[in-house]
Amino acid sequence: MAYDFWYWPEIPGRGEFVRLTLEACGIAYRDRAREGGADALIADMADHGEAPAFAPPYLAIDGVAIAQTANILLYLSERHECGPSGMKSRYWLAQLQLTIMDMVAEAHDVHHPVGVDLYYEDQKAEALRRADGFRNARIPKFLGYFERALAAESRPWLAGGRWSYADLSLFQLVAGLRYAFPLRMATLAEQFPAVMALHDRVAALPELQDYLASDRRLPFSEDGIFRHYPELDAP
Amino acid sequence: MAYDFWYWPEIPGRGEFVRLTLEACGIAYRDRAREGGADALIADMADHGEAPAFAPPYLAIDGVAIAQTANILLYLSERHECGPSGMKSRYWLAQLQLTIMDMVAEAHDVHHPVGVDLYYEDQKAEALRRADGFRNARIPKFLGYFERALAAESRPWLAGGRWSYADLSLFQLVAGLRYAFPLRMATLAEQFPAVMALHDRVAALPELQDYLASDRRLPFSEDGIFRHYPELDAP
Repeated sequence: MAYDFWYWPEIPGRGEFVRLTLEACGIAYRDRAREGGADALIADMADHGEAPAFAPPYLAIDGVAIAQTANILLYLSERHECGPSGMKSRYWLAQLQLTIMDMVAEAHDVHHPVGVDLYYEDQKAEALRRADGFRNARIPKFLGYFERALAAESRPWLAGGRWSYADLSLFQLVAGLRYAFPLRMATLAEQFPAVMALHDRVAALPELQDYLASDRRLPFSEDGIFRHYPELDAP
Repeated sequence: MAYDFWYWPEIPGRGEFVRLTLEACGIAYRDRAREGGADALIADMADHGEAPAFAPPYLAIDGVAIAQTANILLYLSERHECGPSGMKSRYWLAQLQLTIMDMVAEAHDVHHPVGVDLYYEDQKAEALRRADGFRNARIPKFLGYFERALAAESRPWLAGGRWSYADLSLFQLVAGLRYAFPLRMATLAEQFPAVMALHDRVAALPELQDYLASDRRLPFSEDGIFRHYPELDAP
């Protein structure tokens, strides 16, 4: 039976981290809001009384919503034996995934430092200040951590010899950062060779080629989490 | 054997969510940075090459760091059979915990909207703007979600008949919000009776009385995540 997957239909956003795992692991799903639109998503969100979701993405299973990106990925990896198994990998991958999601939230807040309910144009002055710290302190700190995580293992993937949902997510994070901050990422690339090599290995995974070339893979845009505003980027 | 628990020694912060579960579940631990200071924490963080932590809090176990608050709590609840068990509760509680941590991050960003590396005084104008949206939109949205989660079950605790780490965490979240935004929380209290009642039930748990009265329980302050700046609060 295919999962009912729900996320905003127009952007990759946090939903893309779930899609990548569903696709790479060959798990059947229906992308419900891409079929029925945002209105269908909003209606469905009101419909999981027993275990509601605070926000998309979520999987709707027997009337219950399994939400929070890292939690969905934990669920899928445990249910479908996709990726490394074993207790040690489990908490390590969850830890990495949560750190990836923390950086995703910060990447969003660069263009929305004052409020999610305001337009970018109404918080541009604050965004310029926040972008400076994000480019110069936060990107190197986060990527340095993932570089260290990869280097420590001296292996191609974050948990050793087999790719995991966290590897797919790190690929998406790097892709998003390159879209939003192309100048800064070009400068930093050589400092984080293991992270950049991991991005390229995920992009070349046979399990993802069909998906990445399809229209199921949504492009980044200025409606999403990773936005390219040239004034927020610098080498 | 007692766990080695590491967090900044002067503030409750994210570490307090872990402490509450360690204490309420009767799990032995050493609060290492409160024994050895922040320097000992910084030195230890460099010492988990195989699985480093991005940031405290973490548990150091056999040279490995188990980090990210929600991940630590998942680990402890599974290892120590403390709280509801069963797969359904497991993902539900993880989902709630992650949503609590999202609100904790937003509560922090109210006083640090532009950058974690800057002082509050250097981003006060931006903080005033962000606080407005946090008080009027975000607090009601998050508390409304937890109210719905409790009401749906019509039970005293988030996962039914037995308290869990997510209940302890929701208590701490409400306590932090009351400290930082006393005027706003006084106005909102009657809209979220189930959340407020849950706070009071956790505060009265026999398992926590010794801890809450001890000096192991750190007070909130303007060095922490929840800060009381009167100019950021309003009814």
